[in-house]
Amino acid sequence: MENLYKHSVEIQPRFNDFDALEHVNNTVYMNYFDIGKVSYFKTIWDTDLIDWKEFGLVVARIETDFISPILMGERVIVRTTILRIGNKSLELSQQLINPDTNQLKAAARTIMVGFDVETNSAEPITEKCVEAITRYEGRTFKREINR
Amino acid sequence: MENLYKHSVEIQPRFNDFDALEHVNNTVYMNYFDIGKVSYFKTIWDTDLIDWKEFGLVVARIETDFISPILMGERVIVRTTILRIGNKSLELSQQLINPDTNQLKAAARTIMVGFDVETNSAEPITEKCVEAITRYEGRTFKREINR
Amino acid sequence: MENLYKHSVEIQPRFNDFDALEHVNNTVYMNYFDIGKVSYFKTIWDTDLIDWKEFGLVVARIETDFISPILMGERVIVRTTILRIGNKSLELSQQLINPDTNQLKAAARTIMVGFDVETNSAEPITEKCVEAITRYEGRTFKREINR
Amino acid sequence: MENLYKHSVEIQPRFNDFDALEHVNNTVYMNYFDIGKVSYFKTIWDTDLIDWKEFGLVVARIETDFISPILMGERVIVRTTILRIGNKSLELSQQLINPDTNQLKAAARTIMVGFDVETNSAEPITEKCVEAITRYEGRTFKREINR
Repeated sequence: MENLYKHSVEIQPRFNDFDALEHVNNTVYMNYFDIGKVSYFKTIWDTDLIDWKEFGLVVARIETDFISPILMGERVIVRTTILRIGNKSLELSQQLINPDTNQLKAAARTIMVGFDVETNSAEPITEKCVEAITRYEGRTFKREINR
Repeated sequence: MENLYKHSVEIQPRFNDFDALEHVNNTVYMNYFDIGKVSYFKTIWDTDLIDWKEFGLVVARIETDFISPILMGERVIVRTTILRIGNKSLELSQQLINPDTNQLKAAARTIMVGFDVETNSAEPITEKCVEAITRYEGRTFKREINR
Repeated sequence: MENLYKHSVEIQPRFNDFDALEHVNNTVYMNYFDIGKVSYFKTIWDTDLIDWKEFGLVVARIETDFISPILMGERVIVRTTILRIGNKSLELSQQLINPDTNQLKAAARTIMVGFDVETNSAEPITEKCVEAITRYEGRTFKREINR
Repeated sequence: MENLYKHSVEIQPRFNDFDALEHVNNTVYMNYFDIGKVSYFKTIWDTDLIDWKEFGLVVARIETDFISPILMGERVIVRTTILRIGNKSLELSQQLINPDTNQLKAAARTIMVGFDVETNSAEPITEKCVEAITRYEGRTFKREINR
């Protein structure tokens, strides 16, 4: 299962990520997954700067399982991959891991849909996007046309 | 469906809640739902101050659907209720709504489990908690003992 | 001194504003002062929505004194006024206060300068801005032309 | 002037650090300076984990000059040094820099005072702290006993 994730990036924690219980606050996990998503798309498009108004994808749904608290002093990495590409949507899978202990901290499944933020309308997933993901992941995606 | 939610609280947006697309950033929705959760438990326990180390519940899973962007200048409220109480867990349902247009912005389903953060161990949902929810919501919850 | 501040707004705290010491984290004070600034300018311009690209002012300097920690369960208001209007800049004075005890939590002095974010160039403080402040504060400002 | 700063650390930006003007929001600069401060003290004490309840210093005042906006895609580092150590307080100097262009983005001067958060009382700066700073910085500090 570990090999599923080709992409990973280490998180730089901020003191205020930790709440009064001295755990990374649940709301901050979303920022950590977001760092993974941004890094993933910069990597597959080989760019330092994404034009978000032309990005073409928006988040429609996130399911997050909180497995184990992240404590002060722990290192955390976020792993990201794409599980499925449909005509209108794609599905990301992500994990937060302590790379020293390999302990799973949290897992997220995210549905992103094709969307043009300028025109505010749904769009199909672009071929450019599918190609970049396929090239990076090194495996093919059977596209499901009704999703 | 609207009457399901007895509890609601208006969000005070912060300028930095909005990202470069001039929408409330997806990660910030979690803060908004969190404001709802904290307000809900303060209300049912009739207190201004919760001792989080004795709170007895932690978030195990959140499923969030992002329906419509929240724009600058829009008012937002968060509605919170409990859908189900089991022996080991309970299930919150929440909505983010523009109260002027009644437009649904996002919906979340959250599983919280009984947990003692001091001893780091799972605990059943306390009777005190079930009673407070039942009294506030004004309806009974059939407890499912295996969840 | 208290009467200096005509404008005040109560802060809605978020659980993650509090850090591992169970105090509002220093970095979050900036968000609280920011809520005061945004509310102040909405009030003097009598609008629910400021077009930030045409706002005409940017923050050049903030001096913040942290007087007393903000604890969980405390109410906090932010008070805002303008102390001085120059040709190129104006000076805000702000306080964070517990309105129940009147305890001063923090004070900030902020220099804002006239600036056009579209052209990325310094601009004088507009007459429209001076008039709105003068009308709201109910006192006149002797403009210092070299600042 | 550049050589004054022995310590620097690169910031990992988060998408939501950027506000609707596509600049890092002013409030987030405080988080960036905070990352520098935490990294500085971890470095001089050679630890991955600081016990904040025994840290012995709290921030009393921060003066921040905002020089130039931080844009999407820019790298940012934070440089930190200690300028002065008194009996009761010490003074940090920090800069945010784009390391590719060497452009100064912001500068901060921070006064930290000796403080015991457990007993809520002022304390002198500890000798252990002075020694760690002196050893790391490789220069001596003439201590001013009335500050």
